[in-house]
Amino acid sequence: MYGAGDVRVETVPDARLMKTTDALVDITHACICGSDLWPYKKMQPNETGRRMGHEFIGTVVAVGPDVRTIKAGDLVVAPFVWSDGTCVFCRDGLQTSCLNGGGWGSPDVDGGQGEAVRVPQADGTLVALPVGRDDALMPSLLTLSDVMGTGHHAALAAKVRRGKTVAVVGDGAVGLCGVIAARRLGAEQIIILGRHRDRIALAREFGATDVVSERGDEAIERVRELTGGLGAHSVLECVGYEESMRTALSIARPGGAVGRVGVPQDDSIPLARETFFNNVTIAGGPAPVRAYIEELLPDVLEGRIEPGRVFDRVIDLEGVPDGYRAMNERESIKVMIEL
Amino acid sequence: MYGAGDVRVETVPDARLMKTTDALVDITHACICGSDLWPYKKMQPNETGRRMGHEFIGTVVAVGPDVRTIKAGDLVVAPFVWSDGTCVFCRDGLQTSCLNGGGWGSPDVDGGQGEAVRVPQADGTLVALPVGRDDALMPSLLTLSDVMGTGHHAALAAKVRRGKTVAVVGDGAVGLCGVIAARRLGAEQIIILGRHRDRIALAREFGATDVVSERGDEAIERVRELTGGLGAHSVLECVGYEESMRTALSIARPGGAVGRVGVPQDDSIPLARETFFNNVTIAGGPAPVRAYIEELLPDVLEGRIEPGRVFDRVIDLEGVPDGYRAMNERESIKVMIEL
Repeated sequence: MYGAGDVRVETVPDARLMKTTDALVDITHACICGSDLWPYKKMQPNETGRRMGHEFIGTVVAVGPDVRTIKAGDLVVAPFVWSDGTCVFCRDGLQTSCLNGGGWGSPDVDGGQGEAVRVPQADGTLVALPVGRDDALMPSLLTLSDVMGTGHHAALAAKVRRGKTVAVVGDGAVGLCGVIAARRLGAEQIIILGRHRDRIALAREFGATDVVSERGDEAIERVRELTGGLGAHSVLECVGYEESMRTALSIARPGGAVGRVGVPQDDSIPLARETFFNNVTIAGGPAPVRAYIEELLPDVLEGRIEPGRVFDRVIDLEGVPDGYRAMNERESIKVMIEL
Repeated sequence: MYGAGDVRVETVPDARLMKTTDALVDITHACICGSDLWPYKKMQPNETGRRMGHEFIGTVVAVGPDVRTIKAGDLVVAPFVWSDGTCVFCRDGLQTSCLNGGGWGSPDVDGGQGEAVRVPQADGTLVALPVGRDDALMPSLLTLSDVMGTGHHAALAAKVRRGKTVAVVGDGAVGLCGVIAARRLGAEQIIILGRHRDRIALAREFGATDVVSERGDEAIERVRELTGGLGAHSVLECVGYEESMRTALSIARPGGAVGRVGVPQDDSIPLARETFFNNVTIAGGPAPVRAYIEELLPDVLEGRIEPGRVFDRVIDLEGVPDGYRAMNERESIKVMIEL
């Protein structure tokens, strides 16, 4: 990406092993993330460009001599950050804060929207999948690299519990996965706030019990009505705008929690006093999806959850620029890249 | 209080029973709260004035016909809000959000800094004490009406756990009680941020292991040094200014939590992005001290905690205006009123 709206498919030097803990992975499946749309909307023009993509599945073609748990031939899924798996934060299950980790597309690390990737800290990062690359579950498995784990993180941060009321702000792929996560954790009432017909229909299939298509104060009023005037126990903020955060904080009931996974586009969190007087907890951040893959994988493999249904378009590498356009214009919920 | 700095002791109509669920309480002990200093600093002049005081112990002199658990003659402690004890929020232990509750000094409800108080919802609100009014424990018991429960709430909101590192921002009475609470919950390292010699000395006696007297970026740097570069697992924000909140959020380690009990003086919470990327949880609010009295009372009665030591001055009712001055000028940590 060279700037807002400027995505190019280019030939770059081949990915290669650089450290003894690296793996080299040929990508089979990748995707475009809602968070990729922030730079697609806002990035200043840049001559060097930026490697994009942080969600992928691929085949390991080589590993460094210190890699122990991953071997050539493995089909692997990668979380949206790489991590060593051994530092104090990784041991606590917060791999997004790994002391020796980092993000895809940083210097000397390739992006996931490409043919091959150098994977640092392969043992800590990659998870081998017990299926072949043509398995029908591939779309759902791919969501474990980000959106399904992110929806799960939002639900955990918002303290979703069996029998409780959950509201999900945002009907993008993460919001939809938030609905799956809330239902999976036993929520009784799941209210989705969104206004795109196709997404709402999918949300209902995933377990949403109520839909609020209003915005702003009207949306807040409507959620109040749906929750006996009290608000939701748990709110999943899956957008990142100040306005959506304001809505999320306003529909949490006293003592409730907002789990935020939409990347904040503003410097401060609104409603400091209202949330204080209501004892509303604000939690969340980038999801340590590496910690969640093992928990969610059996549910995907056994068909109990189908997050791969958020992909409504499949493209090849050449189609990536148009994939950004389609997602940005909300023509597509989420685009899968098949190589 | 008639405006900033304008506190007057006046004769008002006698408190009296108005509803069948009321109790009438003759106050024996009350105090001035750090939160009373906000209007003392900022309140616009007002001809009607505002009844002050929300922390008290007293003797029940009469109860309405529907009061079941409290009787005339009982020595009782009152939380800083009144609550019915039966609504959905009270049952959840969040009496500060009681659907039928309210605050002292609101219309037809007297303030705690006075001779007598009408206590609405007496069954839900009051807790009888198993001691006499001259008991030496009276100061510590009085802190159960607010500051000790508030420090405990901050510690719970900040997820203080055995063996973890805690930082306490603010060396007022609540911060000092936060130190007590953190130690009581088993924290291993307790860092207090404050610069008043008398308060710091008391914090050390209460269990603080480290003191940071710097401010702003220097304080943040110092806490980092004291925590192996990582920050504190739990941070108790016991002030309420944007600047103290900024410090609190900056010294929480990734995955950590800030428990805020200082009443926010600003409309927004800073560092939305930094806290997001570090997965820092922001929780807290007005403490449901009613829920905590039963838990903390045995520790006070058996001398395991001595929060009453935050009182360093005892005055009578006539001395209240000067008590405000003394606390506002930090001549006194916290003032007790004995009637």
